[in-house]
Amino acid sequence: MARTLFLLPGDGIGPEAMNEVRKIISYMNEELAAGFETDEGLVGGSAYDAHGAAISEADMAKAMAADAVLFGAVGGPKWDAVPYEVRPEAGLLRLRKDLELFANLRPAICYPALASASSLKPELVEGLDILIIRELTGGVYFGEPKTITDLGNGQKRAIDTQVYDTYEIERISAVAFEMARTRRNTVCSMEKRNVMKSGVLWNQVVTETHKAKYSDVKLEHMLADAGGMQLVRAPKQFDVIVTDNLFGDMLSDVAAMLTGSLGMLPSASLGAPDGKTGKRKALYEPVHGSAPDIAGQGIANPIAMIASFAMCLRYSFNLVKEADALEKAIANVLDKGIRTGDIMAEGCTKVGTAEMGDAILAE
Amino acid sequence: MARTLFLLPGDGIGPEAMNEVRKIISYMNEELAAGFETDEGLVGGSAYDAHGAAISEADMAKAMAADAVLFGAVGGPKWDAVPYEVRPEAGLLRLRKDLELFANLRPAICYPALASASSLKPELVEGLDILIIRELTGGVYFGEPKTITDLGNGQKRAIDTQVYDTYEIERISAVAFEMARTRRNTVCSMEKRNVMKSGVLWNQVVTETHKAKYSDVKLEHMLADAGGMQLVRAPKQFDVIVTDNLFGDMLSDVAAMLTGSLGMLPSASLGAPDGKTGKRKALYEPVHGSAPDIAGQGIANPIAMIASFAMCLRYSFNLVKEADALEKAIANVLDKGIRTGDIMAEGCTKVGTAEMGDAILAE
Ligand SMILES: CC(C)[C@H](C(=O)O)[C@@H](O)C(=O)O
Ligand SMILES: CC(C)[C@H](C(=O)O)[C@@H](O)C(=O)O
Repeated sequence: MARTLFLLPGDGIGPEAMNEVRKIISYMNEELAAGFETDEGLVGGSAYDAHGAAISEADMAKAMAADAVLFGAVGGPKWDAVPYEVRPEAGLLRLRKDLELFANLRPAICYPALASASSLKPELVEGLDILIIRELTGGVYFGEPKTITDLGNGQKRAIDTQVYDTYEIERISAVAFEMARTRRNTVCSMEKRNVMKSGVLWNQVVTETHKAKYSDVKLEHMLADAGGMQLVRAPKQFDVIVTDNLFGDMLSDVAAMLTGSLGMLPSASLGAPDGKTGKRKALYEPVHGSAPDIAGQGIANPIAMIASFAMCLRYSFNLVKEADALEKAIANVLDKGIRTGDIMAEGCTKVGTAEMGDAILAE
Repeated sequence: MARTLFLLPGDGIGPEAMNEVRKIISYMNEELAAGFETDEGLVGGSAYDAHGAAISEADMAKAMAADAVLFGAVGGPKWDAVPYEVRPEAGLLRLRKDLELFANLRPAICYPALASASSLKPELVEGLDILIIRELTGGVYFGEPKTITDLGNGQKRAIDTQVYDTYEIERISAVAFEMARTRRNTVCSMEKRNVMKSGVLWNQVVTETHKAKYSDVKLEHMLADAGGMQLVRAPKQFDVIVTDNLFGDMLSDVAAMLTGSLGMLPSASLGAPDGKTGKRKALYEPVHGSAPDIAGQGIANPIAMIASFAMCLRYSFNLVKEADALEKAIANVLDKGIRTGDIMAEGCTKVGTAEMGDAILAE
């Protein structure tokens, strides 16, 4: 049976990075008879330019039907003034919501060859391997009301609503506990139960889920602000962190920056397993953005995009050996001192986007 | 006219740290005829134990009447299970709200003697001097509805509401621009306008306030998640950061941790100037918490509490020379290698809470 991939390169450096993944897909089809079928669409600013929407209905339908979506990046100054509803990010948010991709997996690992690129002291980040599990379809991102109202006296009032139901917290904490079992068996749950009712419920439900089904896993709780501090102070104390959509956005970005490997970090966004087939809907995207300042020059680092495809092989197609090999190829290329400009260091060889892709393919 | 101070030492190490401030107040009254009148109350767990509330009505009235409130710290495992409405933090939140302390000033400075204590590379934090201005009486901390509802099918729903009105954003950005004028004249405003309507309004109002009255100050905007990253990557790029209550909570804690001087950082929470007297209500508190694990041992670091009192001298009483002298005394003591356990380093002299207070007083 064919494995279907829907490619959404997006804006900025998205298309360049996606090209390198295409090479790997072709290679896998030719040499390994992997049987990937790919189709491609527009998202973000490029979709707005073509259709006046951040993603077209036709492309949404294709994303829904595919085994997995590979997503590049969206946004750029060109679209800073477009209406809120069709801003580039709206395409990504709609994909997350309509595909019900509630579990965002953000590994923060420090590639040994890059430890010195971190702003932290090397001994604090060498060997760092955290997995942040961010709830992705709830909370303040999607809760209603979400409005700006004119109060009539020169005053406006803006409202956003953070909403969490028991089942949403249950399913994301289950993912966290299951992931922890394949790693160092420890979960740290972060919220602000001292000021937020959603934090109180979050804490309760995580605790109950743990007790009911995962009491073999070690569970800690930390206030999210203290969690941010601890990430900076001693990041290696963490294994799996589970947190809500907004705290997850902040904390995963801080964690990513700690590694010194920001341009290299992938992410996976997964839905619930289908009742019949057991398949999860999924979207894979690099953590970095569209970097409009360097787009189109062939100098962008494609590693995060390629590493996102490795996550896709692992989580959507259970191609564990292939995923391992691809991740190993990335590490080997770095060990050889082959670098794009963003991670260039003394004594290394500077290459462009395509050469980096080729080097990884060669491995 | 007497200068009135209301002392709320609170829980954990709060009382020990406050003792050292008391010594300085006595000294100033005796040697400098500073004329401070002090009164004292209970807040947090200690207030709960005495009155069943996180702060009593009588103490609230005294806080309202005083020129300034000095606040220690609240909380501890002893009160982890008390009802939400009377948890220790509720005392602090009520003080902020009822005194309308909308402007929270959190300096993140790196004491030169402590640069090596940071988890960041020393060259990234040496000389660091950021001022985070956090909105403190609005946003998700206080917005209604703030509820947990039983949905009846084994499901609960938690709701928190982020609300901001134009005037709230206007007044906090005015504080930021005015502070910037006394510093390096640059403000960076942080929000998530790409996902939050309150971020959209925040961005608009800051921009308009800037245009109307502060166009001499340099203004930048950054998404809050990117802001967290940039704080870790290159904190010295910032002068004044202005942001909402929740982002301010996260970002100021990350910034505090960067300095390596966490146990040393003060904060000020200010209200609007009174129409007649021009006086602002104010509360001063250390950034660190109640540290129940080391409470009562006489080993806590009182510097953050003392530095908070220096902010009090500066902002509530315009005693600029005295504030400068006190801050200088702290720096001198650190330069001499006098350290409490939390900031101990090789070749330094380890002292307890009281000795540290005495050493600063001696300077
Ligand atoms: C682009 C933006 C909507 C998005 C988010 O806030 O979730 C991004 O910051 C991320 O973390 O994936
Ligand atoms: C104690 C708590 C309510 C408080 C907050 O979240 O504001 C604290 O973290 C702070 O930053 O002052």
